[in-house]
Amino acid sequence: MSIIPPIRIDYPDWVDSVVDWERRYTSDEERMRLAIAVSRENVVRGTGGPFGAAIFEMESGRLVSVGMNSVVRLNNCTLHGEMMAFMTAQARLGSFTLRHEGGPAHELVTSCEPCAMCLGATLWSGVQRLVCGAHRDDARRLRFDEGPVFPESHAYLEERGIQIVHGMLRAEANEVLELYRSSSGPIYNG
Amino acid sequence: MSIIPPIRIDYPDWVDSVVDWERRYTSDEERMRLAIAVSRENVVRGTGGPFGAAIFEMESGRLVSVGMNSVVRLNNCTLHGEMMAFMTAQARLGSFTLRHEGGPAHELVTSCEPCAMCLGATLWSGVQRLVCGAHRDDARRLRFDEGPVFPESHAYLEERGIQIVHGMLRAEANEVLELYRSSSGPIYNG
Repeated sequence: MSIIPPIRIDYPDWVDSVVDWERRYTSDEERMRLAIAVSRENVVRGTGGPFGAAIFEMESGRLVSVGMNSVVRLNNCTLHGEMMAFMTAQARLGSFTLRHEGGPAHELVTSCEPCAMCLGATLWSGVQRLVCGAHRDDARRLRFDEGPVFPESHAYLEERGIQIVHGMLRAEANEVLELYRSSSGPIYNG
Repeated sequence: MSIIPPIRIDYPDWVDSVVDWERRYTSDEERMRLAIAVSRENVVRGTGGPFGAAIFEMESGRLVSVGMNSVVRLNNCTLHGEMMAFMTAQARLGSFTLRHEGGPAHELVTSCEPCAMCLGATLWSGVQRLVCGAHRDDARRLRFDEGPVFPESHAYLEERGIQIVHGMLRAEANEVLELYRSSSGPIYNG
């Protein structure tokens, strides 16, 4: 288009130095440590907010994608860590859904509970499990708004077959939120 | 990245034939007619689901961007019409928010009430007004799920200064939903 510049979404250039794409991540803790490592690197490198995520094949532990908050870096309010993980996973698989008959089930592991946008996208993404690190109240202490998420919101996803786990390695995830606060990172959409 | 192919987000090639970028859209009806025209063209051209949106400067009626459902076309579950409109507006303005001190206020006009993801993104986008055509129940009759949206969800946005208008040209917006149904378009994420 003449009026709108092309939109290109990509990872910051440090990703391959933090992510081992060949490894099998076999436990919830290993998977969450990767999401937290991504969130930490995003803060340390100054490429975005303190939020990281990853998508895995549930059974095999194969890593499909990671995501890191890229709102400020890419001038795009929709690019929370979870959204980056969904988009890149679907680009890699060449499909708008991660749920296919007879195919592997997928899960999203995120360093902080998803905001309203990301929780909605979780439903559309086709993942069948959601594992969260920090609580929404932890993010709100930094004045990050989480949007209109209610207990019924999580129940809505669970009724549609998505298992939700809260508080996985919450303390480790919180260390990155505190690192961001102490480094005075910008609170966009505060 | 080696593992993830680059993600490029663009409009289908018919956009400039439907959208008059120079025109000032001065009334709610004119603005909604554009969003509906975009939704219709998306169905007629077979480039996506029956949902269109546009972002305007509230006072001047200047058109900033349009958006059309691009989930299947671009293999990306996040690309609802509203999300396309936010991303392209922010790319055009070179900013992750449409709200700037002293700058023009913006509004989102969408042919159907936003799903949970898009409603969350509405909050992050910086628009100060949301105008909706078809009701969520209209979309659900086609078996499009709207996700966890509750009356409190709209109230949450209103409390943060976003004015919401429902049912603008609802009948015209619904004609496109019916067109999609009669053409047996795919109901992704149904």
